[in-house]
Amino acid sequence: MTPNAPSRPTRVAVLGASGRMGAAACRAVEEAPDLELVARIGRGDELSAITEAGAEVAIDLTIPSVTAENVRWLVEHGIHAVVGTTGWTEESLEALRTQLEGAEGVGVLIAPNFAIGAVLAMRFAEIAARYYDSAEIIEMHHENKLDAPSGTARHTAAAIARGRAEAGLGPVPDATEKDPDGARGAVVDGIHVHAVRQRGLVAHEVVQFGGVGEQFVLRHDSFDRISFMPGVLLGVREVAAHPGLTVGLDGYMDLG
Amino acid sequence: MTPNAPSRPTRVAVLGASGRMGAAACRAVEEAPDLELVARIGRGDELSAITEAGAEVAIDLTIPSVTAENVRWLVEHGIHAVVGTTGWTEESLEALRTQLEGAEGVGVLIAPNFAIGAVLAMRFAEIAARYYDSAEIIEMHHENKLDAPSGTARHTAAAIARGRAEAGLGPVPDATEKDPDGARGAVVDGIHVHAVRQRGLVAHEVVQFGGVGEQFVLRHDSFDRISFMPGVLLGVREVAAHPGLTVGLDGYMDLG
Amino acid sequence: MTPNAPSRPTRVAVLGASGRMGAAACRAVEEAPDLELVARIGRGDELSAITEAGAEVAIDLTIPSVTAENVRWLVEHGIHAVVGTTGWTEESLEALRTQLEGAEGVGVLIAPNFAIGAVLAMRFAEIAARYYDSAEIIEMHHENKLDAPSGTARHTAAAIARGRAEAGLGPVPDATEKDPDGARGAVVDGIHVHAVRQRGLVAHEVVQFGGVGEQFVLRHDSFDRISFMPGVLLGVREVAAHPGLTVGLDGYMDLG
Amino acid sequence: MTPNAPSRPTRVAVLGASGRMGAAACRAVEEAPDLELVARIGRGDELSAITEAGAEVAIDLTIPSVTAENVRWLVEHGIHAVVGTTGWTEESLEALRTQLEGAEGVGVLIAPNFAIGAVLAMRFAEIAARYYDSAEIIEMHHENKLDAPSGTARHTAAAIARGRAEAGLGPVPDATEKDPDGARGAVVDGIHVHAVRQRGLVAHEVVQFGGVGEQFVLRHDSFDRISFMPGVLLGVREVAAHPGLTVGLDGYMDLG
Repeated sequence: MTPNAPSRPTRVAVLGASGRMGAAACRAVEEAPDLELVARIGRGDELSAITEAGAEVAIDLTIPSVTAENVRWLVEHGIHAVVGTTGWTEESLEALRTQLEGAEGVGVLIAPNFAIGAVLAMRFAEIAARYYDSAEIIEMHHENKLDAPSGTARHTAAAIARGRAEAGLGPVPDATEKDPDGARGAVVDGIHVHAVRQRGLVAHEVVQFGGVGEQFVLRHDSFDRISFMPGVLLGVREVAAHPGLTVGLDGYMDLG
Repeated sequence: MTPNAPSRPTRVAVLGASGRMGAAACRAVEEAPDLELVARIGRGDELSAITEAGAEVAIDLTIPSVTAENVRWLVEHGIHAVVGTTGWTEESLEALRTQLEGAEGVGVLIAPNFAIGAVLAMRFAEIAARYYDSAEIIEMHHENKLDAPSGTARHTAAAIARGRAEAGLGPVPDATEKDPDGARGAVVDGIHVHAVRQRGLVAHEVVQFGGVGEQFVLRHDSFDRISFMPGVLLGVREVAAHPGLTVGLDGYMDLG
Repeated sequence: MTPNAPSRPTRVAVLGASGRMGAAACRAVEEAPDLELVARIGRGDELSAITEAGAEVAIDLTIPSVTAENVRWLVEHGIHAVVGTTGWTEESLEALRTQLEGAEGVGVLIAPNFAIGAVLAMRFAEIAARYYDSAEIIEMHHENKLDAPSGTARHTAAAIARGRAEAGLGPVPDATEKDPDGARGAVVDGIHVHAVRQRGLVAHEVVQFGGVGEQFVLRHDSFDRISFMPGVLLGVREVAAHPGLTVGLDGYMDLG
Repeated sequence: MTPNAPSRPTRVAVLGASGRMGAAACRAVEEAPDLELVARIGRGDELSAITEAGAEVAIDLTIPSVTAENVRWLVEHGIHAVVGTTGWTEESLEALRTQLEGAEGVGVLIAPNFAIGAVLAMRFAEIAARYYDSAEIIEMHHENKLDAPSGTARHTAAAIARGRAEAGLGPVPDATEKDPDGARGAVVDGIHVHAVRQRGLVAHEVVQFGGVGEQFVLRHDSFDRISFMPGVLLGVREVAAHPGLTVGLDGYMDLG
């Protein structure tokens, strides 16, 4: 997407600029004609460099132990924040909401997943789930991933379960009587989830729906970390127009 | 989907009951606990049998030359109509709209495609199109299909073009300079469309979206004509709650 | 495939002609110009009808408890046999081999799977396995299947394990440390196997291979029981040219 | 694949070491425990550095205008050559064959495609083609590719045509009467070939076969240039055992 360039570029700071995601975000901001990278904050750098540089929006791609503190500081100084770091708890989110009530016009986006395709897959899965008897998830990742299934697959299973509940659907049909080795995979919120680990892959999700005589499939492939950047930039461009706290990139997307 | 059975089954007539689609509809209505098949109308049968049987909803699966006349008769007699026959023109639709203004509470659904999955694919394609640089369609059918590409693929291309226009996206990127044999396929509303014809297939559509480092795919497979029946039944169940004319099954679906 | 029609059609009997597979085989033989259906043997029919009809080849699609006895009778009477019934043991196969030594020129084919595509997938999987670090299987079936994973998936896993052993490959790479719900599926001969159960599907197998920067995929879809018939006819046409016992349709296929 | 490391590493030179493929080859050789990189030859470097370094095998990844001359020099000096450069003609191949007759024990491999998966797909496609009525190819590449369809797709179409001819199959079934925009794609050796161009993709090929009630699919995905390296290393390890000229990596692979 190439939005209309505003008259003046938005001034952006990146926290966690020396990490892999942070470095990719710096490059993405630099290449966007409507954005200007004014501060790269790495470990040990003072946050005051952000205000000194006149940043309007900050991207936090740091680590769980410092992100909440960073965002509190940013809101305190009237800087919008786009946050990709995990580790937020109900308590830290609640504290942030309270702080934002007193910070008029400041927006914060906390997004566990900046891949637009993963967000689309999750949303579409919830809708499609209403219309099909069967639903199953296959997530596929590189061979070095430590946990199974992926967090995205768990979230997608939850979305499917919500869609099925809304439509009054019961359990998925499954006549399996004999599965001595566990080939039917994990069951998350009533939905079977399979995890493939394969050298050469990055991050992929397939959601399959089945009804009498038909199949409906959603698939998202992330071939590269860079695929998160359009989502990050979407957040940066929209955060000022969404005061208060938004959790999930879909809050900024027009999925209706 | 197993909706809550109403206290009394809805009384349903099928027009075109001796055709293949009509016969399948008769079976589907008979097997639905909340519906009752009260009239099968074939070629040469009198329409009056529909009112005599006390039908509340009629399914029209006849042929282009008679469907408009059938529907006019049904509306005249206060019977809701669910129509899968093609051949409607802007003129015949307009005449029907005018008639329906004077027929309070009567609903008509005209749906060119009753496959819920095809409707979902089209709707999701329009939304996803806003977020990706590239979009392309591959439709696949049995080897006896006479035309290419399919009507569904053409409609999907139009939906993608709408989504791209809404997002201010220009033409899809494509550096092709040399394509002597036409491998890049058809271009419909700016979107490349490929048609595969293969023995053993029925009706399949794949929509692929691409951005830097990622891919998003929608796929619908119709393995059997019976896959249209859930859409027909959805229409029958919802038509009374939607007075006036609705074109497209998506008008009855909650896709938000 | 349209083989050259021989001067005189081969005379074929079908045992188990009233079962679903048997009925399909009868139709397939009747439609083949180079074959002639001369006897349909159902439960209770005398086998002598086969010799009386002058059958040269018999297709056995009966049940495990009678197939060995049927085939013994056929070999005794000099009739070639193409057998799709399961239930053969090492003992019954050995007895048949011994009998065939004294029945010069008589051929018997016992094939656990007549789907040519499944045979190809298994053979190609063994070859491809030599060249890839990772290999994983996803089998998908209708929701009424009782066991998981499928027999074909188990055989394919064994074929992959053979291929890896030939190439001196060790275990597949897999860093999974945390998989509380069993998302990584079954492990058969060292290969992860996933079983999807979905309404609307019939029988499908996907074999995925991965190496640094690449993926190789084999996929077979059976949409209908009729997909076994080309394999049955291949057996009927080739059995006379392969005296003695052959186990597996691949013995008749040119896969080199 | 982790072959048994030989007692002494093979000494390897890379020509075209400063190009992208050449640089990747240097890294791959350095990382292989059974190989030793002894010379990197870039533009302007003297070939004599190869013999001075005691190289046993040379990898030529230069450009069409110099590759033939390079290989002639290598053979003259008794060095085995693995060549990935295109631009070889019937004449230059013939001259090389003649030279090799007088160079006992020297092996040369010229491979237009070092992706093992593409070689497998092509070989398997030729075999599978014998058993299916329908066959079609979809190749998919990044949006900057200049020509369509890809060379690999053309070679695969030729392989399918050979397979069909061996089996006595006629033209693929196709009832298309109306295709005003060319959705049926290119026809290469009687096989329909479709080219998709999509941002985020690299190089992908899908080969679909269809018969009554079934489908068989071969798919190869190259996500990265690095996927060619296992093929290059396979060539380096095998070239000494294959004196004379071999065209195509499949000559070194055990595909039987």
